[in-house]
Amino acid sequence: MQIIDSPQHTQHDPPYEILDGERVPYFEVPRRAAIIAGALADAGFPAPIPPRAFGLAPLLAVHKEEYVEYLERAHGRWVAAGLSPDGVMPCTLPLGGMAGRSSAPTAEAGRYCFDLSAPIGAGTYAAARCAADAALTGADLLLGGERAAYALCRPPGHHAMPALAGGYCYLNNAAIAAHHLAAAAQTSDMAPASVAVLDIDYHHGNGTQTIFYERSDVFFASIHADPNREYPYFLGFADERGAGPGEGYNLNIPLEAGVSDVRYLAALEQALEAITAYSPRYLVISAGLDTFAADPLGDFALSAAAYPAIGSRIAQLGMPTLFVQEGGYAVDDLGRNLVGLLQGFESL
Amino acid sequence: MQIIDSPQHTQHDPPYEILDGERVPYFEVPRRAAIIAGALADAGFPAPIPPRAFGLAPLLAVHKEEYVEYLERAHGRWVAAGLSPDGVMPCTLPLGGMAGRSSAPTAEAGRYCFDLSAPIGAGTYAAARCAADAALTGADLLLGGERAAYALCRPPGHHAMPALAGGYCYLNNAAIAAHHLAAAAQTSDMAPASVAVLDIDYHHGNGTQTIFYERSDVFFASIHADPNREYPYFLGFADERGAGPGEGYNLNIPLEAGVSDVRYLAALEQALEAITAYSPRYLVISAGLDTFAADPLGDFALSAAAYPAIGSRIAQLGMPTLFVQEGGYAVDDLGRNLVGLLQGFESL
Repeated sequence: MQIIDSPQHTQHDPPYEILDGERVPYFEVPRRAAIIAGALADAGFPAPIPPRAFGLAPLLAVHKEEYVEYLERAHGRWVAAGLSPDGVMPCTLPLGGMAGRSSAPTAEAGRYCFDLSAPIGAGTYAAARCAADAALTGADLLLGGERAAYALCRPPGHHAMPALAGGYCYLNNAAIAAHHLAAAAQTSDMAPASVAVLDIDYHHGNGTQTIFYERSDVFFASIHADPNREYPYFLGFADERGAGPGEGYNLNIPLEAGVSDVRYLAALEQALEAITAYSPRYLVISAGLDTFAADPLGDFALSAAAYPAIGSRIAQLGMPTLFVQEGGYAVDDLGRNLVGLLQGFESL
Repeated sequence: MQIIDSPQHTQHDPPYEILDGERVPYFEVPRRAAIIAGALADAGFPAPIPPRAFGLAPLLAVHKEEYVEYLERAHGRWVAAGLSPDGVMPCTLPLGGMAGRSSAPTAEAGRYCFDLSAPIGAGTYAAARCAADAALTGADLLLGGERAAYALCRPPGHHAMPALAGGYCYLNNAAIAAHHLAAAAQTSDMAPASVAVLDIDYHHGNGTQTIFYERSDVFFASIHADPNREYPYFLGFADERGAGPGEGYNLNIPLEAGVSDVRYLAALEQALEAITAYSPRYLVISAGLDTFAADPLGDFALSAAAYPAIGSRIAQLGMPTLFVQEGGYAVDDLGRNLVGLLQGFESL
């Protein structure tokens, strides 16, 4: 399996986020990617290739142009206004029908971000562009006939909305890749859904869901912590099934705390059966590893043995599959668990 | 002029707010009310009377019931969940079409508050109820025939939306009083607008505007810093004129930085002419004093001499007038400036 890294990720290293009023060290650290890269090398995966530069067009297929422009200039405007170079952080947000036209840096920070876990530093935009290119490079490998690819994306992407950052995410790498695959597949294939995105991160992929919610060419399925107790809270409920032409093309499987390997694999079975029913031509996995028992942000109880099992079961679908790295914050276990997922896939 | 204080305000004393990613000491401190009360006594105003308890009904006339219930239980649920007793503070908010049904304490914090400047502590709800009662008590004095009253409300209210706290505000004291007056006036009077609210706080009264935006019985006028550069950013533009039956019943006068006494009094003239045209029976003044040159949150350049002039000009309307305390953070100057405003009013 080809590995694509995103070497500019080290430029993105926010010092903190704010959770429930408290400043805490940023969980989504550069070491995550280093640990994964090291474990892949140790396990004998081929040396990673760098991403190819795809330009803005595939980003603008899923994100609003004004938002991508904002990401590019936000930190410079923020610092020029005398605000902290640590990163752009919202403090007032346009809820409740407020219109949000102000161009003040503080106003823009609130208009384009829905939480306090996605600060924009000097290198954030470059890193996010590089991560999106990594996912796109992986998608192109599938289009070229490869069975599978893994994009070591950092920052992750699945919480990024069409025009909102949040939850460590800025550009939705998995959605950008899925759209790229769907656009290519449509020229040759009119299956019910040409691409499926399966999100196995502990947190619901609210950004990916929103991006594809009214589309029937991309089926989105997510297995995650029940939003009644967990981030991202405001989306991820089982009755969110898509809308308009996308009605029926969204499947959420919210789970209780303490989920075991057996319980998780049963949920995975349900998701994969739904995916199979849509006969997609390509599969994109939003590969979060924060379902692991030791993860500091999660409350599932998956063991290391779960990941090879998940990878193997995904491989049984027999679809060209792109793995896109999302979350996972038990950093010391991250490499082993990711390798387990990919080796499980390749074992079949 | 009768003074109504809100003695429970001392129970509300948040240790900090978060502005542009930085924790800063809370500007809206109990000493503000103490300074004002002392200055009123020194100036020979009558001893303050306590507020009468009005119950929930007048609050629910402008706020959603689920929101008021939330304010009451929020801190208890927050602390029970192991979160900081310093106060309920949002960190993720339902922007971008997110639905917001989660009942997790962190989700509720984001559903019912639009910024990081309205933490809910153990005594916040009691203080906010007391401040609303103070404004209502003042309104009742007008209904009883008094020419004027001053409600020393703390916390302030004009940023509070139907179902959102923000900007040091939880219950919209001025809007609650204005609705109370409008409801009483309607039984005997069908003037174009039975009540006018004039907001002279440095910051736009986004909550009050929103509450009355589609109503023609309450005319709202606000003179404030241009939201293109200043909080609350997302409302307060000149082209927001009301909607539906309220079309034409909203007047925003956004001003540039450095506004002088002369410039401010010209804007006041414009607002008062508009109010006069609607012949309201009662006038409610959202009396912020953060237009003062030395205010740490403002960039206007008003001198202490402006406040008697403003009070005197308001008095010329000859309307029964309720002053409701809003902002003002140059604490040492607050008493003198508020006394100046009220003495200017009484001088006529």
